[in-house]
Amino acid sequence: MRIAALQQNYIIGDFAYNKAKILAGYQEAVAAGAELVITPELALLGYPPKDLLFQPAFLSDLDAALNDLTAQIGSVPLILGTVRRHPESLLAYNCAIVIQNGQISAEVAKQLLPNNDVFDERRYFAPGEPSTVVTLAGHKVGLTICEDFWNDRDFWRLPRYDYDPIPPLVKQGATLLINIAASPYYLGKVAFREELFAKEAAKWQLPVVYVNQIGGQDGLIFDGHSMYINSSGDIIAKGAGFKEDLIIGELDIPQNSAHINHELTLERHRPDAAILPRGPEWEKEVADALSLGISDYVKKCHFKNVLIGLSGGIDSALVATLAVRALGTERVHGITMPSRYSPDDSAGDAYKLAENLGITIDTIPIEPIFAAALSSLTPIFGPTPWGVTQENLQARIRGTLLMAYSNKNGHLLLTTGNKSEIAVGYATLYGDMCGGLAVIGDLFKTDVYKVAAFLNKEAGRELIPASTLTKAPSAELAPGQKDEDSLPPYALLDAILRRYLEGNEHIDNLFNDYPPETVQKVLGLIKRNEYKRAQAAPILKVSGLSFGAGRRYPIAQNFSHGL
Amino acid sequence: MRIAALQQNYIIGDFAYNKAKILAGYQEAVAAGAELVITPELALLGYPPKDLLFQPAFLSDLDAALNDLTAQIGSVPLILGTVRRHPESLLAYNCAIVIQNGQISAEVAKQLLPNNDVFDERRYFAPGEPSTVVTLAGHKVGLTICEDFWNDRDFWRLPRYDYDPIPPLVKQGATLLINIAASPYYLGKVAFREELFAKEAAKWQLPVVYVNQIGGQDGLIFDGHSMYINSSGDIIAKGAGFKEDLIIGELDIPQNSAHINHELTLERHRPDAAILPRGPEWEKEVADALSLGISDYVKKCHFKNVLIGLSGGIDSALVATLAVRALGTERVHGITMPSRYSPDDSAGDAYKLAENLGITIDTIPIEPIFAAALSSLTPIFGPTPWGVTQENLQARIRGTLLMAYSNKNGHLLLTTGNKSEIAVGYATLYGDMCGGLAVIGDLFKTDVYKVAAFLNKEAGRELIPASTLTKAPSAELAPGQKDEDSLPPYALLDAILRRYLEGNEHIDNLFNDYPPETVQKVLGLIKRNEYKRAQAAPILKVSGLSFGAGRRYPIAQNFSHGL
Repeated sequence: MRIAALQQNYIIGDFAYNKAKILAGYQEAVAAGAELVITPELALLGYPPKDLLFQPAFLSDLDAALNDLTAQIGSVPLILGTVRRHPESLLAYNCAIVIQNGQISAEVAKQLLPNNDVFDERRYFAPGEPSTVVTLAGHKVGLTICEDFWNDRDFWRLPRYDYDPIPPLVKQGATLLINIAASPYYLGKVAFREELFAKEAAKWQLPVVYVNQIGGQDGLIFDGHSMYINSSGDIIAKGAGFKEDLIIGELDIPQNSAHINHELTLERHRPDAAILPRGPEWEKEVADALSLGISDYVKKCHFKNVLIGLSGGIDSALVATLAVRALGTERVHGITMPSRYSPDDSAGDAYKLAENLGITIDTIPIEPIFAAALSSLTPIFGPTPWGVTQENLQARIRGTLLMAYSNKNGHLLLTTGNKSEIAVGYATLYGDMCGGLAVIGDLFKTDVYKVAAFLNKEAGRELIPASTLTKAPSAELAPGQKDEDSLPPYALLDAILRRYLEGNEHIDNLFNDYPPETVQKVLGLIKRNEYKRAQAAPILKVSGLSFGAGRRYPIAQNFSHGL
Repeated sequence: MRIAALQQNYIIGDFAYNKAKILAGYQEAVAAGAELVITPELALLGYPPKDLLFQPAFLSDLDAALNDLTAQIGSVPLILGTVRRHPESLLAYNCAIVIQNGQISAEVAKQLLPNNDVFDERRYFAPGEPSTVVTLAGHKVGLTICEDFWNDRDFWRLPRYDYDPIPPLVKQGATLLINIAASPYYLGKVAFREELFAKEAAKWQLPVVYVNQIGGQDGLIFDGHSMYINSSGDIIAKGAGFKEDLIIGELDIPQNSAHINHELTLERHRPDAAILPRGPEWEKEVADALSLGISDYVKKCHFKNVLIGLSGGIDSALVATLAVRALGTERVHGITMPSRYSPDDSAGDAYKLAENLGITIDTIPIEPIFAAALSSLTPIFGPTPWGVTQENLQARIRGTLLMAYSNKNGHLLLTTGNKSEIAVGYATLYGDMCGGLAVIGDLFKTDVYKVAAFLNKEAGRELIPASTLTKAPSAELAPGQKDEDSLPPYALLDAILRRYLEGNEHIDNLFNDYPPETVQKVLGLIKRNEYKRAQAAPILKVSGLSFGAGRRYPIAQNFSHGL
């Protein structure tokens, strides 16, 4: 059977745009001889539409768009991801519907609704009843939506749901399984997903077509990597990663499915938490993901250009380099804002970076403003020993200047904090945390260096200056200041953070394995800085556990584990 | 039967504190002759513990606290709200457990798990199976947890759940229904809840005991108002509002429940959206709620004092007055920061307010810093016409100064934006949006005036100066600027906002009822300012639909309803 998968990038709520894109893909696929065309999950709406789903006007416009699209579909069936209203509830169904000859001929609702990590599907959707196979071009097709494929009891140690929607479809004689998805990326997930789907295909001895969205949506990045898998479990065609793609391929569909007594035993693969093994080229994968996250946020929020405060340090250098990779040199602007405590070589490193990247850069010294602020505060404060007040003041003056530039010129300010800093609050709220998108907020500092080194290697030349890569990290807010004066060495800090946050380990394990005073300090900092993260910019998610919607903590709390 | 309800205020995760509080309440109740003692929902943990529930150390410490508490409970049974682990899932159960003679004798799990508005219970909990009645002191008791009582099919037009947990308990012969709750406050909810519970009691002809938490938790405010209701549906005892209370009362328990063929037909009361009628004393109710929200956030986050930027306008005046009501005069400090565009009387109004309230106040003119910033920016910007850049610059300098004071002195900065401003983005991110708690962020501007007038009336003298109450609102960021130069008149703006946000009406209704260009402008502003709200401080919720966790929107989206 000749099947087309529309691996597309949608805009949430832009029904005209999404409808036109789906229709264009459908027509191209039909012209290329496709006998069946498949979109990703919620293609007509974009994912995740969130509380727009509660708006009556949104739902009525969706109905209109669906009617219009349906009327334009011919004899080749289209499997479309969309929402259907629940007749007796405020909730809706997240559906795969079959459209053919201007009619909706079948409708299958998602049964397993993820409500963990970044997902809130129980807020919006009612779970579908176990579904029946759909006959298409003489084949019995089992339609599933994303999570429906992720609950094999042989595969997971602790299944999240009561049942697995796949076996009933197999029992009904399905000869082809289709999964439409909006599956967000994180490190290691591509390989994990391939393994999961290939094993399911082999287990049931059925071909599987997996169609995933691509695109950035606030902090989420959908990576594509759609798959055609034959009944032996071989991936015979793959969609591109982080790019739109139209996959058209022949898939052998068995005449019957008589292979229910499968012999393959799936190993238990559930990670204890959210850390998956990284592939050998993970730095490229992350760079591709973040580049897409940047370019889509800029495009979908109607910006043209981005702005980055360049300190001469590694974080801002990496963000600028990724921004250029995503948007090109013309659309990226840097500003360096030296203070009385900036070593002379910092501005030099920022200028060297700008030169290497080919971007424009301005300098605004903060000294006159800082001096004016200190002198305005002196009557209130009296003489004050140096401290966090003055340090934060400098960071906030910088944030204010960057935002002034953003207001004046319409640039989106990218914020440059990394995950290590965000975890322990080593950042100034309303200062260096200013910005619309936290590009590397889900990368630990030790990984920041690795991705930076990769980008230099990928370019075949120095983009990020060698001096930036080698000097000791510093906030440069006090004389001779180094990050490691206040924080544990990053290798140690990141090891603790990774196990605590992503590995979700018991605190006692950490006390056993690391210096207790360091563990205590780090966990205390994480807890005390919840309020900063509550006001942080959206963070591009590239790990199994990202700050933001994926980790929801009370601010006012006093869990201390007796410490 | 002599029953005690512990209407208490817990701290999330502070097991030692919560355990001691519960035990003290239990012992006091037993000494007063109680035959049964009841806590609110999740008393041992505080509500909502959020992702702390996924932490292994949190769960093991909870187990230890529960064991310790259990050992200290004597022959009078304690009904305790706590979490029990699910043996085969990452999820847990939200339970009411019965403890007696140092043993857990029964355990009932919450069946209806709210996942709407501010609730994410499906993220954390597995739903309980239909429960059996528990025999206590010879009475058959039906135990329910919060939402379990909120799904009467006669009452709601569109039930959110498949079934109602109450009828099975009645059929088992329950002679007393108990509901333990952590039910957050909003305007009109107290009366609504009383009506709902009284009707249920009358419908089943059974007495009902309702025990609710009190306390502020980030943006949520639990209001208490526990209730004892007799089998005729009369509320015979009430817990205090917004305060801890120990309610001990006799309740007649029928010998049998033979009244299943009830005749009372419940009207359908479900509001179309989140607007409930306000009572005659709603301003006091809101003032009490916000006062508790302030004092608990301050206490639970370990602050001593609060800081407010006083502009002479109504919003900051109301916040300061509420802060004094919550904390007393000694713990509130004001700073006024006049600019070149502040009318002379603004600082005067701020000082008058401070004098009326008895709080300290400082003045920091922003002119020198503003001038330094403008002159630092001129080489980059060139000559610039007056505009949003310079306006925001002033607001951000003010935010920076307030945060410097906060860093220096450890005061919590309260932010003063109202719901109307937050909706349309008439606020400067990292400027006047700076602060740890948005006190009046769920009050429309027109309501701000009403609550302010009430506080003057309550005090029996002028707290908020008459001139502040009567002058036209202004951001004072440009010469002669008035809010209504940029925004529709607040009466019109608030009417549109209330129907769109809280009433969740179809956009077409608004176009029918208001000037279309105004509607278009307002809806466009709401949409374009989602990014600001994504970085806003927690907002104290006092309406059925508050910004923050109760309204989750994508930032990058393009739903326009064809406009």
